[in-house]
Formats: sequence, structure tokens, C-alpha cells
Amino acid sequence: MKKYSLAIVGATGLVGRKVIEVIQEYGLPLSKCEFFATRKSAGTDFFFEGERRIVRELKNDSFDEGFDFAIFSAGAEASKFFAPIAVSKGCIVIDNSSAFRMDKDVPLVVPEVNPEEIENNNGIIANPNCSTIQAVLPLKALDDKYGIKRVIYSTYQAVSGAGQEGINDLERGIRGEKPTKFPYPIVNNCLPQIDTFLDNGYTKEEEKMINETRKILKKPNLRITATTVRVPVLNSHSESINVEFEKKFDLKELKDVLKKAPGVIVEDNPDQGIYPLAINATGHDESFVGRIRRDFSVDSGINFWCVSDNVRKGAASNAVQILQKLIENRG
Amino acid sequence: MKKYSLAIVGATGLVGRKVIEVIQEYGLPLSKCEFFATRKSAGTDFFFEGERRIVRELKNDSFDEGFDFAIFSAGAEASKFFAPIAVSKGCIVIDNSSAFRMDKDVPLVVPEVNPEEIENNNGIIANPNCSTIQAVLPLKALDDKYGIKRVIYSTYQAVSGAGQEGINDLERGIRGEKPTKFPYPIVNNCLPQIDTFLDNGYTKEEEKMINETRKILKKPNLRITATTVRVPVLNSHSESINVEFEKKFDLKELKDVLKKAPGVIVEDNPDQGIYPLAINATGHDESFVGRIRRDFSVDSGINFWCVSDNVRKGAASNAVQILQKLIENRG
Repeated sequence: MKKYSLAIVGATGLVGRKVIEVIQEYGLPLSKCEFFATRKSAGTDFFFEGERRIVRELKNDSFDEGFDFAIFSAGAEASKFFAPIAVSKGCIVIDNSSAFRMDKDVPLVVPEVNPEEIENNNGIIANPNCSTIQAVLPLKALDDKYGIKRVIYSTYQAVSGAGQEGINDLERGIRGEKPTKFPYPIVNNCLPQIDTFLDNGYTKEEEKMINETRKILKKPNLRITATTVRVPVLNSHSESINVEFEKKFDLKELKDVLKKAPGVIVEDNPDQGIYPLAINATGHDESFVGRIRRDFSVDSGINFWCVSDNVRKGAASNAVQILQKLIENRG
Repeated sequence: MKKYSLAIVGATGLVGRKVIEVIQEYGLPLSKCEFFATRKSAGTDFFFEGERRIVRELKNDSFDEGFDFAIFSAGAEASKFFAPIAVSKGCIVIDNSSAFRMDKDVPLVVPEVNPEEIENNNGIIANPNCSTIQAVLPLKALDDKYGIKRVIYSTYQAVSGAGQEGINDLERGIRGEKPTKFPYPIVNNCLPQIDTFLDNGYTKEEEKMINETRKILKKPNLRITATTVRVPVLNSHSESINVEFEKKFDLKELKDVLKKAPGVIVEDNPDQGIYPLAINATGHDESFVGRIRRDFSVDSGINFWCVSDNVRKGAASNAVQILQKLIENRG
């Protein structure tokens, strides 16, 4: 099998470190793997496949040595500046930031949902927002079968979605200390603000969920709204999702549709207290769905509960799975 | 001013203790106040209006001495058994449990919303579920003005909603110990189950929110659905509420309607990071609303965020406010 060279950019952040972990788990055929970070984090060392490795400083000439692929998890600003440089050197970039997601000529990919988009790139493939990825996995299967008419999201997002600083704020808060990342204490609180506010009263996180869902499902006019909320949970996002369908459905059949959906695991047995939980989803790469029940307030609709590891499937694992597809496509 | 005698039943529980606190704050004209609890909690002593008082054991003859009013917060079983006894002795019972809420001849009252129902009782007045009370305060004002067509609730409910044992589970969990009240750890987790499951896949808590909202708003056929979730928050419930209206609205006018709604405080200035928070609502008796914004996925609808102290307005204060109205009505 052919082997490929990979650059991991933002290797010291929470997502970057998870990318390194997942890369090793997935055992991709790599001839070379190099690690980069901005100046303040460069120099960190760690073990990769049994060898001590050093994180190098990300520079204008970092991609001159030639990489087949790069996974960027260093934030939107770094992506905007360095991804085009990487591409100009012949590298295909999988970008975890929001920088290019809504660009018309950048595919926004969840490999189980729209793998056909992967090769339709001009050098950059965007990884969707964490809260979007876990939702579109079940929604895609439901849309194919019943036609989705409207979606209403309310999210319960973990502090790890805000990176290591978010985790630190939760830990600091438990010790009675003030937050430094979040605008208000996250301990014993729910913050109905993730990212900054737009003029229409929505947050950027809510706008991302709305626009990215439309793009991935290829339904640009989908009726969809969202309320995104940070909760004092270490890891894994939970979502309350209300969906209205074009077609009628049989509930048992709908659950079977979800059971067969790639990347989805149905955990739905209320009688035995079985439903998705953040503490159980952590460490896995699937989107867990349960509490699937008819919404009696519309002709054809459901409510369901969706939980997934936001650092893995919501970021690192999804990016590595895109890389895996790229490698498979190249044989 | 005439003075009245009051029995506080379930005086040692989390809500009962808060009732005692709120009674003293509100300074109601009481000639006598006696405290009752079931056998295992009777005998507890505490200070009430500067005097040491003892909680008496609740017995079949407890109401023989004659009480004008009683506030019950001892659970549905105790209410079912003892409330009719109290009523038979001429006492008017304000019941915090779910025992009588949906009975046709029992008014279900939030004083700011349907005070006209209070005197329409046969001896029992029901206090609604905590998650319902905070929601109907803004919904009533919106319904009067724009006609509510459909409501979708997703809740973020504090552990204090499960009483002292719920609080203990959160504290135990932080110390790394297992839960005893909740079915799963509440620390770093969101539990999409409050109360037990019904055959249709909804929980009783969800059914309560749906049915009680309909009853209080006097819209028995209101299209409404709910997902109720326990989050690792000590006190004050948060709710993501999506509402569809019959009539069109102007957003600024709609916010003014909410600002004028009794029992509602609008905290809605995203530019300055102002929105309702659980840590701020605790200790207050209002329902705080914010993040009020147009839902672009329907002709006329909004999303908003609603937070209130579930032990105060969601239980104790609402019951005391009902008592206050009863006293006012008697002059």
C-alpha cells in the first residue's frame, strides 16, 4: 500500500492532541508525520508511535518540504493564513476551523453523510462544527427516507468544545475560582451563548449549525432554527432535536432506519433506562440517538436525543476519517 | 387585618423549608402556623419568626384543631391521603404535588396568569410543576397578544428539582461517589429522563409540562411538545422555548409585551452579554427571559431562553403567592 506524508497543524491544542491519538488508533499508512504549532506552543515534545517527537513552529516555509495532506486545528486565523500556503505547495488540507466551511468551492464533509464531496475540492476540505456533525448523521438517514421539512435544535454542549481553556474553567469553577474563558461561571450554570452574537440575535454557533446542516444535507432552503447552550459537562455534546417530515412514518420503521444509518448507534429502550448519555459517548466515534418518539403537535414529526464525543467525532475523528477516505480513494 | 391559621405539611423537605422561609419574607397575617411532616422527619426543630418550633408528626387528626389554610409539599402520596382529610375539616389546601393538578375541579394556579381560578376550588388548589410555572408566565402574555399556535420545550433542569437527594447526588458526584437519587451520574452528564416513562415514549415530567401548560393557558388543544432534561446545575431551571404564533408580530413590540408581563423580567441585551442565567435567577421569584429572537423557519415564531428559581417560583413562592391571594380575597 502506498504511504503518505501528513502535517498536523495545531498539534498542541485539545483537538490537535486528539488528532494525533486518533491517527495512531486508525493506523493509516503514513510515510511521515510532522507536527506544527504557533510559536508559543512550539517545542513541546510527546510520544508518537513509540518515538519522542517535537512540535515544530508553524512558518511560511513549513510546507516546502512537501506534504500530501495536512490536518489543521489551530483556529480560523491560522487556517486562513497558512492553509492557502499549504495548498500552493500541493498539500490537501483538512481544516477543523470555521474559516472555509461556507465557501462554495470548499466541501464540508461528514464521511458517512456526503463522502462523494471529498474529491470535489480545490485543496481544502472543511470539517463541520462539532454540534452539526453529530446531528447530520441521523438527519441524513431520516431525510433520505421521509424528507425533512423543519428542524429545531436545542443543544447541551460540553466545555471541551471551548478547548483546554473551557475544561480549565470548569475545573477552576469547581474550586470556587472565576472563569477566564467563558463570560460567566459555567459551574451550576447554563450559558445560552456560544461564540459571539450576530445582529439578528443569534450566535455564530447557532448560525453555523443552521447553515452547515443545510449545506451538508444539500437542502439550502431547509427550515431550521437553533439554540446553542454551554452546560457544565466535561465532554460530549447532547442535543434535543425536533424534526418535522414531509412524509408520514411508522415509528418502528423510523427507528430501523436510524439503526441502519452509518455512524449512528440507537440507544433507545426507556423501559430499561437506556438512552444516550454524555459520559457513555465519550471515547467513541458514533452519534448516539435515543428518546425517539412521535411529536404529537405536528402531522409527522419526532423528538429525539443525540449525543456524541465532540472532540472525537465532532472534530478529530471526523477529520481523520476524511483523511482515511482520501487515502482509500488514492488506493 | 384579619389573621389566619396555616399548616405547613412536609416542613422538613427542600420545598417545605423554602415555604417556611418565604412565608416569613412575605409577612402574611398569620394567627398561627404549625409544621407537620411524616413520622421519619417529625421532631426536627428550627427557628420561625424568632421562636424555636418543632415539626409535628402528620396524623389523621392533625387538622382537627382547625386551620384556614394548608400548604402541602410532602409528595403525591401524602397529598392524596391527607389533603381530603384537611379539606373535610374546613381547610383550604394549596398542594405542591402532582396529585390533583389535572383534576377537572381543581384549579391549577400561577397567580400572575390565572388568579381568577383561585376561588373556583372545592378545597384544593394545585401548584403547577416547576418547569411549567416559569414558562407560562411569558407564554400567557404572548398568547393574549399574538395567539400561541405551537410550543416546543427543551429544558435544562437543576438537581434541586429532585429535592435534597438531588442536591446530594450532585455533591456526591463531585467527590467521585455514585448517585443514589438519579439513575446515572449527574456530574459531567445530562440526563434526558425526569420522572418515569409513559408508553408513548415521553416521561411524566414531559407530560406534565404539556398538559399543565394547556390547562393554565385554557387551550386544551394547544399543539405542544417537550423534552425535559436534568443538568448538573444546583438550582434554577433553564428552558429553550420555541413558539409559533397565529398572528404576525413586531419583535420590539413583542419584547415590550414581555416587559409588561407580570412576574416576568426581560434580560435581553446580547451586545452587553445580558441574558438570563441560573446563577442569577436563584433567590428571586420572577421568570427571567432573554435571547428573544425571530425564528426564521416559520411565518411567525420566536425562540427564547427562560430561567427561574425552581424551588422558589417553581414551588414554594408560587404556593405562598396563592395563599397571599386567598388572604387578599378574604380581606
